[in-house]
Amino acid sequence: MPATDAPGEPIDVVALGSALVDVLAHAEEEAVAGAGLTKGTMALVDLDRAAALYATMGPGTEVSGGSAANTVAGVTALGGTAGFIGTVADDELGEVFVHDLTAVGVTLATRARPLAQGGEDAATGRCLVFVTPDGERTMATHLGVASTLGPGDVDEALLARAQVVYVEGYLWDLGPAKAAIRRATEIAHGHEALVALSLSDPFCVERHRREFLSLLHGEVDVLFANEEEVRLLFGAADLGGAVEACAETGLLCAVTRGAAGSVVVAPDGVTEVAAEAVEAVVDTTGAGDLYAAGFLYGLTHGERPERAARLGGLCAAEVISHLGARPQADLRALARAAGLAVTGLR
Amino acid sequence: MPATDAPGEPIDVVALGSALVDVLAHAEEEAVAGAGLTKGTMALVDLDRAAALYATMGPGTEVSGGSAANTVAGVTALGGTAGFIGTVADDELGEVFVHDLTAVGVTLATRARPLAQGGEDAATGRCLVFVTPDGERTMATHLGVASTLGPGDVDEALLARAQVVYVEGYLWDLGPAKAAIRRATEIAHGHEALVALSLSDPFCVERHRREFLSLLHGEVDVLFANEEEVRLLFGAADLGGAVEACAETGLLCAVTRGAAGSVVVAPDGVTEVAAEAVEAVVDTTGAGDLYAAGFLYGLTHGERPERAARLGGLCAAEVISHLGARPQADLRALARAAGLAVTGLR
Repeated sequence: MPATDAPGEPIDVVALGSALVDVLAHAEEEAVAGAGLTKGTMALVDLDRAAALYATMGPGTEVSGGSAANTVAGVTALGGTAGFIGTVADDELGEVFVHDLTAVGVTLATRARPLAQGGEDAATGRCLVFVTPDGERTMATHLGVASTLGPGDVDEALLARAQVVYVEGYLWDLGPAKAAIRRATEIAHGHEALVALSLSDPFCVERHRREFLSLLHGEVDVLFANEEEVRLLFGAADLGGAVEACAETGLLCAVTRGAAGSVVVAPDGVTEVAAEAVEAVVDTTGAGDLYAAGFLYGLTHGERPERAARLGGLCAAEVISHLGARPQADLRALARAAGLAVTGLR
Repeated sequence: MPATDAPGEPIDVVALGSALVDVLAHAEEEAVAGAGLTKGTMALVDLDRAAALYATMGPGTEVSGGSAANTVAGVTALGGTAGFIGTVADDELGEVFVHDLTAVGVTLATRARPLAQGGEDAATGRCLVFVTPDGERTMATHLGVASTLGPGDVDEALLARAQVVYVEGYLWDLGPAKAAIRRATEIAHGHEALVALSLSDPFCVERHRREFLSLLHGEVDVLFANEEEVRLLFGAADLGGAVEACAETGLLCAVTRGAAGSVVVAPDGVTEVAAEAVEAVVDTTGAGDLYAAGFLYGLTHGERPERAARLGGLCAAEVISHLGARPQADLRALARAAGLAVTGLR
């Protein structure tokens, strides 16, 4: 059951992100291409396009999602404490989103906005996820009211308790969210909390490369990215070049490589960590989010980055073994079984 | 992909039922008992109680459900044609319900009712499903707008094309629905279609025993029930007594017995059919619904009841191997692999 969140106590991770409900459906490769989507990436779509895409989808399964929200759900599933800042509408999917995070013990600063009458930001955001037979996911997100996240949503009291403030790169697509992130970063650094950034998606890196690079000089302390994202960020020809560029930043960087595991670049050296074995990859949605969950849980419980990365790999392996991006198994038990039980500082 | 529904062509099965979206969550036995629910049964709850129960639930997965709706989704998954008559609200869960049936090729007479402002029947119905570690499900249904199903919803043109009109016993809990069923039965018998009734739930049988018994004299042609329901219906001490009572009705009765398979009682004799082997029972939600799907598909494609029952068992086995009451695997391929490919009359 949920970890208790005693008021005023420190919280392991507080995340800012888009509050989304995922609509997952199996799809053939041709259907993804035919819908004009690029396999393995996330595209932002407006209301009309979302409706048109939904009409082409098979029967769906609705599960709460949102990249940063998945991460904090993973942190509490490991026994950690977490908070979330995002925006939902006063509608059924908003209720589902709030319920699902609350049920796993995440503290929500999220308050449902009154339901506007129609229009682009009237409803809770949703992410249409096409899962191809290889388990890869292709996403079309209609942000809805999640697009309105702004400085007014920043819960300063919650952020003041965070050991890590975690931000998803996707938020850079939203104007007002940037001011919210700036304020959250200030609060974090005001009490020596770490700021962690996930690069989210290769296209997202292409859209915001310059801004992401500038954040690495003083704004961000921990960087999460997959191989492609980190190569794009630094304009590196290969993984080796990207790792070298990571090392030059002096930050703690975790680079995920799917079945090839991950590479941790820390100020004191580079470590390769093998991936957990997975019997059958059902749906890769949430792999990076849950890697970040395990990594940040380890980090906030006094583990060395290499063990934090192994914990991240373990959580990612669990989430890709089923449909949906939130953990379904007991992650604490899995960690114990894998010899990764975290005794922790707290 | 969906079977085509050519206008005017006969349709294998048209069902009347409650349009519900299931909210499924894993739960411990104690949580089910603690919530005041009786394991393995369905309880109707009002809006307040539904909200209170939802607050006790873990993170959920939303999947379209509704007993009769699950059955018609199974019929189209086997390659058959099907229609559905039920009521949803003009809200997000209503959209999900309509999408998921339409996506599998079911013809919907269902039109979304305008969203009322609050109150008991304002929203699309939902069924909170607590799945215990043994895979058994315990359900609390808030019918919402599904409770308003009435004679005005009966699509006569659709019913006139049905080979089988299928009705879930749950509808007897709703006053106006009974008039709808009477009208549907008249239409069915007006063109020599069969009327099939599912007894739905032991408590449902206790509530409406007398009415169900009276239906067996001329109203209903095919009866679906599990062992407990059929014993309660006929006041029989054991399965043997219940089967004898079934035989005396002269109807075609399919009695499901979980892992023990099913018993088909036909005018020309009684046949026991073994259950399909299931590797791991994840969630029994929809087992009876999908048994009915396979059985009715077989029946409408010229199969003998024994083979129809085997097809039913195959569909039930698929649906209990995953979370949710709608088929996820290719049922046609499963039927072929099991040597149950139906060549059919049509």
